[in-house]
Order: sequence, then structure tokens, then C-alpha cells
Amino acid sequence: MTAPSAGVIIGVDLGGTTLAGGLVDPGGMVQYSRAVPTDRLGRGEGVLQNLLEVVGGLAEDARKLNHPLLGVGIGAPGVIDVGTGTIGEDIQNIPEFRGLALGRILRGRTGLPVVVDNDVNALTLGEWTFGHPRGFRHVAMIAVGTSIGGGLILNGALVRGASGYGGEIGHITVDLDGPDCFCGSHGCLKMFASGADIARQARHLLRVNQPSVLAELAAGDPDRIDAPLVFAAAARGDPTAVTVVARAAQALGAGVANLINLCNPEMIVLGGGVMEAGEILVEPVTRWARFYAFEAAFDGTRIVRSALTKESGVLGAAALFLYEQRRTGAS
Amino acid sequence: MTAPSAGVIIGVDLGGTTLAGGLVDPGGMVQYSRAVPTDRLGRGEGVLQNLLEVVGGLAEDARKLNHPLLGVGIGAPGVIDVGTGTIGEDIQNIPEFRGLALGRILRGRTGLPVVVDNDVNALTLGEWTFGHPRGFRHVAMIAVGTSIGGGLILNGALVRGASGYGGEIGHITVDLDGPDCFCGSHGCLKMFASGADIARQARHLLRVNQPSVLAELAAGDPDRIDAPLVFAAAARGDPTAVTVVARAAQALGAGVANLINLCNPEMIVLGGGVMEAGEILVEPVTRWARFYAFEAAFDGTRIVRSALTKESGVLGAAALFLYEQRRTGAS
Repeated sequence: MTAPSAGVIIGVDLGGTTLAGGLVDPGGMVQYSRAVPTDRLGRGEGVLQNLLEVVGGLAEDARKLNHPLLGVGIGAPGVIDVGTGTIGEDIQNIPEFRGLALGRILRGRTGLPVVVDNDVNALTLGEWTFGHPRGFRHVAMIAVGTSIGGGLILNGALVRGASGYGGEIGHITVDLDGPDCFCGSHGCLKMFASGADIARQARHLLRVNQPSVLAELAAGDPDRIDAPLVFAAAARGDPTAVTVVARAAQALGAGVANLINLCNPEMIVLGGGVMEAGEILVEPVTRWARFYAFEAAFDGTRIVRSALTKESGVLGAAALFLYEQRRTGAS
Repeated sequence: MTAPSAGVIIGVDLGGTTLAGGLVDPGGMVQYSRAVPTDRLGRGEGVLQNLLEVVGGLAEDARKLNHPLLGVGIGAPGVIDVGTGTIGEDIQNIPEFRGLALGRILRGRTGLPVVVDNDVNALTLGEWTFGHPRGFRHVAMIAVGTSIGGGLILNGALVRGASGYGGEIGHITVDLDGPDCFCGSHGCLKMFASGADIARQARHLLRVNQPSVLAELAAGDPDRIDAPLVFAAAARGDPTAVTVVARAAQALGAGVANLINLCNPEMIVLGGGVMEAGEILVEPVTRWARFYAFEAAFDGTRIVRSALTKESGVLGAAALFLYEQRRTGAS
């Protein structure tokens, strides 16, 4: 880790429920952080107002701490036009930002350089800059949360592709005839292993396995079932939960193996809230990845859990800013 | 296409049955070519001897034609250590080359710079240099022949990955519970759609559909069934052949879609002998790719058949040489 420089970056993780921001130095230390509900000032125009207030507040914090500001990095959901910092039309959880030229607006308000990209691209750059895969040239990340996102760094460069879809591992097909996905396809990895889909499958299968530990943990209310509850029930041997976790691990293992066989990274980082389940998931994922991948390619790939903290989103946004400054040759 | 320069490259496509070589100018014109059976001088040491004679003969041809030689590019099966030009241990169809330091040997014999890489990486670079995707930054290739190989160019660089497995699209899992593959996994794309597997599936299914056009075309001998025969029978409506071709197209479509969602290339080139079946395969592959991929990412991807000729392997090997010269900064 490099020594803190004279400057700091405002990193913002713009989520559907929480807007987190922080002052990050180029060594990856979060000097100051703020987190507020995304809809603190209401939905609609309130969300942009909220974002502007958080960024303005952090800029004020930097002034008070006497830290020169280098710029702003923002990780946002969906597909982003990084050149202009414009949010894509497909953004699901902050619909008010559809098509918004967020980068341009923030540059106007702050007078600072601003970089906006997809949140999981930012997470991946955060890992590469501050986490386990520092110094590698070929890195992949799978972030398993409510949905599944991913990021790819190959030949030392982030893979955004032609229009920003690069890295969308959650929507690769691992089952030609698998369950329908909202994206219009079927058999997407996400349908087996995202947090929402782990809960969905458990609720569905619960009907064949009553009474059960899972039903008991949910106090008889299927709506209370979420991924952590399914892992808790699986740890206690509940057959429904064990079945769902086993299938999620198999699908994630195939996803990891597909990354290994197609991109042959030196390291794959598993992150996101669902991965906090720990070994009950990571161990079978790794076993299945070994099964599905070329043996020699698998043996050359380190599969690790993210070592970054809850602040990974803020760190990722700051890493995104640093990456773009370097990539575009800005000082 | 650039104008022919003063020099030529010896491009060699080292296949299990045919060893093809040619003198290629940097504009992609094959000035002179030779093709011999790989085992013309017998197996074992004969294969290397044969290769050395072909390269030596082409060097002699260049001298006679008064073309200065820039160097030698070789596309070979399996995983190659490009830095040293050493053939991998996993090479199947030329077992005598297992672990052979081919690059070093050829440099010693010819005094020329020599580059060796995987044959499908070479094909992909050939397409990028001389074919449809000239000038793009993000390109993927799927080569469907006896087996299925692939190549990726992302951010303007060939994706070899940590140990040369980059681009192995034939062994991504498209069916979590699919048929066993020789690679140790199951549900690999290859198992549905390679030439050998199209023939295998047709032979297997023939038992439920006798008499049939396919059996008639094979003169009652299942051993005569190969992929071209299956396509010919499918074109005449044979139910077994139609079933196998439909499933191969579906799996290839999922493979194309996985490339689109994960790598988001501007163009995907479909090549290899099986693709010579033409629209009977390309049309349903494209339809299924549209089904499995994100709509906006699919719409931004051109899916094309290779426009290179039978000399694509030789052109690819020459393009490989030019790419490595440029990448490593050699003059």
C-alpha cells in the first residue's frame, strides 16, 4: 500500500437503498465517511439533491481536514457511459436517474473531475487497487448480492466492452433450459445463486418439506425468508435449505469455471453480501469450479473472498477515479 | 488493407492431419503456399523434420522471389507458452510435440524471429488483421471444427490469460447437468455443437428414427456419419438431423450470448469447418444468441461468418507474428 499522498478522492457508492460516500486517500484509507438513505430527501429530484449534498458535505469535510481534493468517483447501478458519466436506460433501482448525465452535472457543481461507472466495475477496481489482487494483470470479480454482478481486468485493463456490458457474469447461461430470468433469457447464473433467488427457491421448495427448520426460523411466514436465513437453516441441516445452497454453489462454481476457461485470470475475488455466508458457500463453490474448469487453469487461479470491508463500495469508487486518471493520462 | 511491404512472413498452420505454410505479406496476401500431410515423414521425429523442411522450403521460396523474410509465425494446437514458444503438455493430436520448445528450435535453425501460439488465437488475430473485424477494439471468435476453440481480443489486446487458456469457449458450461466431456467436466458447449459431437449425437439418436434420410445418406453405416452429412440430412427434413442441428444451434447461441454478456465485443466471428454449413446453422445460432443475450448488448454486436479462405490458418499465423512484433515493440 502506498503512503497517503497530499490529496484525497471523494468516493461515492450510489445504491438503491443507501448512498455511501467517503474521503479516500490514494493508499486506500477512508479518512472520513458518510452514509444516508438514498431517499432521505424523497424520491424523484430528491435523490439527486441528496447526492449533491453528500458530495458537497464531503468536499467541505476535506477543506476542514485540509486535504486537497483530486476528484470524485461514483459507482452506480446499471450500464454507464463512462465517457460522459451518463446513467443507462436500464437502471432498475434508481429509476429517477435513467439517462441522467450525472458526471456532467457533478462536474458543473463541484468544479472537480468526476468519473462515473457501474458499481461492480468500481468494486473490481477497488479490489485490484486495494485488495487481494493488487499487482496481478488478470483478475475477475463476482459480486453476489440481491443480484449478481461481475468485473473483469484482463491484460491490466478493465473490460467494459463495446457499450459497458463487460463482466455481466450474473447473466451468462449455465443451463440451456433453465428458469426464466427478468432479462428475457433463461438459465442465467443469477437465477440459481443471487440472494433474491436463493430466497425465492427456498420459499418455493418449502412446500415439499414442512415442518422444517427453515419454516421455524421464518416463524411460519415465507415472506421472512431471505438468503441469510436459508444459510442458517442449511447449517442446521434443513433439507430444503441444503438443496438450495447446494444448487447455488454448483451454479456459482460453473460461473467461476467459465471465467477460468474463458479468461484464465490469476485471481477470482468473490464478494457481495451473500458471500458473507462464508465457507458453507465458498467451499462447495470452489469444489464445483474445480470440477467444471480445466485442471491446469484451475490450479493456476487463486479463488479468494474479498478482504475489503463494508466500505468496499466507497473504496471502489475512489479506485475507479484513480484508474481513469491513469488510463486517460490525466495528471 | 495496407499495401504489401518489402518483406514477407512465413505463416505455418500446424494441424494434426495437415501442415500448411505460406509466405504472407503484411497486407494479407499469400504470395506462395505449401501444404503437406503432417505425418509425411512419419510420426515421432518425422513431424518436426517435416515442419523444418516446410519452413526451410518456404525460406528458399522467399529467397527465389527476392522477398526479405521478417520472421515465422506458427499456430499449433493446445496451450502454448508464447514467451518461449513451447508446446503445452495437453496437446492431443500431435503428441510428439508435448513440451517441445518449438520456438527455440526454429529460431536456432532459421536465424529468424519465431512466434508460436495456439492455433485459434492465431486465427482470431488473422481475422482482426485481415478479416471482417479490422479496426475494432473488442472482438471474439468461435471456431467450430472437430472441436470448438475460441479467441478474444479485448481493449485491443489478445486475451491469453495467466497461462494461455484465454478464449476456450468450447469448454464453458452451458448445461450444469449436461453430458460428460473428455476435459473432466460436463455440459461443455463442445458436447452439443462440435463437428465430432454433432456426428456422435446423430449416431446415437438414429436408433429412434429408422429408416431415415440420414441412415440412407450414410448407406446404413453409422460410422460414415459426420457433421456435413447431418447438415445435409437436416436440410432434407430428417427428424434426427433436425433435432441435433437445432440443439447445436441453441448451445452455440448460448455461447455467443455468454461472450456478449461477459465481454461485450463489437463483433463475433464464426469460423471453422462446421460453420461452412452456412445459414442452416448461422441463422438459428443468431436467433438463440438474441434470446440469451441482453437486448441492447446483442444489438451492438455484429455476428459474422469468417470471410477468410482455406488459408485462414496461414494468414492467422502471419498475423500472430505481426501482432507479437508490435506488442513486444520489436522492429
